[in-house]
Amino acid sequence: MANDLPTTQWVLTLSCIDGPGIVHAISGAIVAAGGNIAESQQFASHDTGRFFMRLQVEAVAQPDTFEGRFEQALAPVTERYHMTWRLDTVGRPVRTLILASTATHCVNDLLYRRRGGQLPIEVPLILSNHETVRDIAEFYDVPFEHRAIAGADDKAAFEARVLAAVDELDIELVVLARYMQILSPGLCEALAGKAINIHHSFLPGFKGANPYKQAHQRGVKLIGATAHFVTTDLDEGPIIEQDTIRVDHSYSVRELTQLGQDVEARVLRHAVRSFAENRVLADGDRTIIF
Amino acid sequence: MANDLPTTQWVLTLSCIDGPGIVHAISGAIVAAGGNIAESQQFASHDTGRFFMRLQVEAVAQPDTFEGRFEQALAPVTERYHMTWRLDTVGRPVRTLILASTATHCVNDLLYRRRGGQLPIEVPLILSNHETVRDIAEFYDVPFEHRAIAGADDKAAFEARVLAAVDELDIELVVLARYMQILSPGLCEALAGKAINIHHSFLPGFKGANPYKQAHQRGVKLIGATAHFVTTDLDEGPIIEQDTIRVDHSYSVRELTQLGQDVEARVLRHAVRSFAENRVLADGDRTIIF
Amino acid sequence: MANDLPTTQWVLTLSCIDGPGIVHAISGAIVAAGGNIAESQQFASHDTGRFFMRLQVEAVAQPDTFEGRFEQALAPVTERYHMTWRLDTVGRPVRTLILASTATHCVNDLLYRRRGGQLPIEVPLILSNHETVRDIAEFYDVPFEHRAIAGADDKAAFEARVLAAVDELDIELVVLARYMQILSPGLCEALAGKAINIHHSFLPGFKGANPYKQAHQRGVKLIGATAHFVTTDLDEGPIIEQDTIRVDHSYSVRELTQLGQDVEARVLRHAVRSFAENRVLADGDRTIIF
Amino acid sequence: MANDLPTTQWVLTLSCIDGPGIVHAISGAIVAAGGNIAESQQFASHDTGRFFMRLQVEAVAQPDTFEGRFEQALAPVTERYHMTWRLDTVGRPVRTLILASTATHCVNDLLYRRRGGQLPIEVPLILSNHETVRDIAEFYDVPFEHRAIAGADDKAAFEARVLAAVDELDIELVVLARYMQILSPGLCEALAGKAINIHHSFLPGFKGANPYKQAHQRGVKLIGATAHFVTTDLDEGPIIEQDTIRVDHSYSVRELTQLGQDVEARVLRHAVRSFAENRVLADGDRTIIF
Repeated sequence: MANDLPTTQWVLTLSCIDGPGIVHAISGAIVAAGGNIAESQQFASHDTGRFFMRLQVEAVAQPDTFEGRFEQALAPVTERYHMTWRLDTVGRPVRTLILASTATHCVNDLLYRRRGGQLPIEVPLILSNHETVRDIAEFYDVPFEHRAIAGADDKAAFEARVLAAVDELDIELVVLARYMQILSPGLCEALAGKAINIHHSFLPGFKGANPYKQAHQRGVKLIGATAHFVTTDLDEGPIIEQDTIRVDHSYSVRELTQLGQDVEARVLRHAVRSFAENRVLADGDRTIIF
Repeated sequence: MANDLPTTQWVLTLSCIDGPGIVHAISGAIVAAGGNIAESQQFASHDTGRFFMRLQVEAVAQPDTFEGRFEQALAPVTERYHMTWRLDTVGRPVRTLILASTATHCVNDLLYRRRGGQLPIEVPLILSNHETVRDIAEFYDVPFEHRAIAGADDKAAFEARVLAAVDELDIELVVLARYMQILSPGLCEALAGKAINIHHSFLPGFKGANPYKQAHQRGVKLIGATAHFVTTDLDEGPIIEQDTIRVDHSYSVRELTQLGQDVEARVLRHAVRSFAENRVLADGDRTIIF
Repeated sequence: MANDLPTTQWVLTLSCIDGPGIVHAISGAIVAAGGNIAESQQFASHDTGRFFMRLQVEAVAQPDTFEGRFEQALAPVTERYHMTWRLDTVGRPVRTLILASTATHCVNDLLYRRRGGQLPIEVPLILSNHETVRDIAEFYDVPFEHRAIAGADDKAAFEARVLAAVDELDIELVVLARYMQILSPGLCEALAGKAINIHHSFLPGFKGANPYKQAHQRGVKLIGATAHFVTTDLDEGPIIEQDTIRVDHSYSVRELTQLGQDVEARVLRHAVRSFAENRVLADGDRTIIF
Repeated sequence: MANDLPTTQWVLTLSCIDGPGIVHAISGAIVAAGGNIAESQQFASHDTGRFFMRLQVEAVAQPDTFEGRFEQALAPVTERYHMTWRLDTVGRPVRTLILASTATHCVNDLLYRRRGGQLPIEVPLILSNHETVRDIAEFYDVPFEHRAIAGADDKAAFEARVLAAVDELDIELVVLARYMQILSPGLCEALAGKAINIHHSFLPGFKGANPYKQAHQRGVKLIGATAHFVTTDLDEGPIIEQDTIRVDHSYSVRELTQLGQDVEARVLRHAVRSFAENRVLADGDRTIIF
């Protein structure tokens, strides 16, 4: 900025049907509100005909003023283009509910990085149907709540608690950190676009129980993981992040599982960071990651 | 070696039911035949209870003598352990038949590296149902034969030609370098353990036509390829090599396809090299790669 | 585009000192000239205080008209911001001079992909101080010129020929495809920003002759390659692309060299593609790759 | 094993000057002692003329008996070949002293995986010149000792404490988990072959302070890390493990540093696991990793 006043960083994401003049209109509103574009990415999807944009905007640090002015300047633009948009401050911790089960690797990875300031999330609650992650949660000063799931009633109660927590705690993101229960269609819909799951992935894919055992039996040379949005179509929601790691015939099922957990933790962390930084936009069955 | 006589390098691969004393017996036969173990890898498969070994052996360069002596010394061992084994000279070019269709990337990659001495294969024939790779074959001085496949009869004739070529040309390895026809069960069986195919792989897997288009539509973040032995179970034979490459939402179907071809060529080359160096051993539905 | 007239794709790259209103001004000129932004990336460098942008613009296919209108609309903007800019058509083959020596792997890789339409370059000439790549050049119908370099005079003559060729053939990019001669400071300066070199890279770096031998002796677990702009500071110009590949103690110097060549070819290809697609912008000692 | 008695897994590593008959002699001693080779890798170094081997041996679970018998059977072999060897039980936790400073990422990674049984080490002590890792140590029930280093005397005292701890606690491995002090030559020598350091690596290498800042300024596309044995030649000891991660121009110095820490933790963990599983053998300035 030309002057030396303290500045605030804003992140603006938007999407609308593609057409001429969008960038000009948006940038005009930003200029009118006294902002300066520090970073920008856009993408026009040939599949859906939609236009997507993410901007980081610097403005003199009078947040309310900029936000107000910007909304005023943007109003005719969003109306004209039937635009979906969202303005946020850069680095604001996203309120995140973690669902866990017995496995600790994803929870540990997320909480360790959150504590170190490497992941812009805050975690007002971990809900789990097992006790295994309790001590990690306590070490990282995160509230932990255990609810056993022994049958269908328990599961319904657990899901009701999830929804209540989302509401009471202003949750913006639900992370299924190896939460091994299948969500009901109702919960999937209620959390549409804000629940991220992590699951193992293999080339080729293996269906059914114990995929690492199947991977071992087929002698795969790569194991991987996929982080995706939760939808009612199990493990088939829009993909946010994927990665693989090299293995060979000498790896036991146990070693494959451990390496797989390393990849899972890494992929989930990456996806959560992208979401928390407002980098993930939905484009039908796919995601745009800026 | 202690003396300065010229030496020959041998590669010995073997497998048998696991049990005590195998390595001692094998190494005894090598010592008795005057060889020295330069390199060795072994693996005991818990899945099948079988033992696998690959050795590189150095012997004074009187090949016939060593081979003869070694076979004699090994006879009681192989008999005792019901051993499957194979003795070859290191670096001997493996006689390879390439089956091609319209795509050139795999053929070009294999022939370029063969010419540079980077791939121990010789290619007495390329058979293709299209003309596209003819000029590449000619540039690299490899015989090329075109046989169109317009119907079931053509296909049967093509396959008969494959079998005849395998026989007449002492073919040890058949490489399906993007040969887009499904092999008949009979041909699969006739080529069992010596035909390698390459196909695209994705997380998750996509069935049906135009997988790169499906990959684009689902917004995958990785595309990959798998080289595997041909079996009657289409694209599901024992895996030899796999790799992936990172992509994002901005890649068009055409760009995904091109990058996919880069990975396919790399993975196939790697698999062919492993096979030609006697590093691939079958262990039921999986491979041991030494 | 709203109408169904055939369109042309343009790529606009620009840089200037960062400040408010740039995107708005640029997008205004595009709108005024009747273009639609299909893709856009920008970056504000904190290191140099400069702003960089790359846009792909779609306009009704009357190229001269759009280009003329756009230049007119842009003139006040470029003047106001002291902007460096360049407008090109998407996919136009970049006129590329290749300098070669004995190694064939990079030349082969570039020419194979150019022929397949995977690399938007045209190659009016390969200049080499050895004959090794002649047959590859001929196969791919690329003019080849051999000039031996036996001493300082030959080298000066070779470099004079390079400069003459750049001038006569309207060369936009010079690729040193394992051209093993050190360029004179004068030639480096004459080719500033348009000559790309590829060299091997290791962790840690090795100075002096036969780096693969040194890499072997130190037991590195990764070998790599770096593509960079040529500057007078040998092998230290702005980096365009890098990659590594995994190796282990069992690799001979010869095997390391071959794998190194695979990485070199891949990294150089990637860098050339980025350059030819107008994705590489210089920011002092670094590059912005869009 | 033929019978159903409980078995113990042994790991044998050895090296000697290469020559004929070694494998036969070793395998003979194993057979004589009643063991069965479950896994084996060997390597003959052309650089040093030495032979290296690692075997996993299964024997009926009377450890003392097998160990005693094996030593007896092996004695003439080790004498004949002037062999260096070591027999250990598979999975035995290696007694590890961790040296730390302010950074927590490596310590956290090692202790988390140790607790989950994924890393066969036990950590009787963490010594640090800062307090930062104390709470992590306490959470994982590992003794922590803080000793500030304000000057040369403190440093000498710290190093004396390291040597005393190594002695008192039967330490087999010292891990410098981002311990930012340069070890004295005396300590390097005292810990030769059993101290592992982790440091960042780049292509090209950067000397001096704040390497991530230099990496940013030069616009590197990869950042990496190297785990190596500590020698008096700073950061130049035999390499055990290396890895890299992809970055681009948009990463700030802070983001590069965080990603660099992820790679450091992963590479160090891998190196520690290899060491603890008796997979690392020294071959002059390089390592053999089985």
